Amino acid sequence: MEFTTTLGLIAGSLTTIAYLPQLIKTWKSKSADDLSWSMLITLCVGIVLWLVYGSYVHDIPVICANVVTLILSSIILGLKIRYKRSGELG
Amino acid sequence: MEFTTTLGLIAGSLTTIAYLPQLIKTWKSKSADDLSWSMLITLCVGIVLWLVYGSYVHDIPVICANVVTLILSSIILGLKIRYKRSGELG
Repeated sequence: MEFTTTLGLIAGSLTTIAYLPQLIKTWKSKSADDLSWSMLITLCVGIVLWLVYGSYVHDIPVICANVVTLILSSIILGLKIRYKRSGELG
Repeated sequence: MEFTTTLGLIAGSLTTIAYLPQLIKTWKSKSADDLSWSMLITLCVGIVLWLVYGSYVHDIPVICANVVTLILSSIILGLKIRYKRSGELG
């Protein structure tokens, strides 16, 4: 495999699995107050658009990376909804 | 501009600017306990690799999007270091 392809795959894997420790931390601490609603929602919408884009251009790595990231970030958003406190903003 | 290119640019813009509300929230609340160290560090390393990848393949959109994301996520990491509590893990 070419050096640049390997580099791209490693980069994509890191920015994808980065959300796993956040998910585990939020799950264990049952607290997500410091996570921004706007970040999580914008991220999820953006990832869905990446998926649509990947499907249009038939880019399998883009589709795979974004499916995993969408699953992880959706679960984090779900945990934030579950653990939300009343009156919280941002 | 082609539909797919526009879609990719919108997707890239959303997953990039998503970190801005997180930065503003962390800055205002002076609290970043619920943000995972592992997520922020993995994300920053992954984005640096995306930048190297973008430079190798001369992909200007990849470089631009990741420069902005790296700036935002590095500032969030810096704020987490600044507001960290002793004994915190994860």
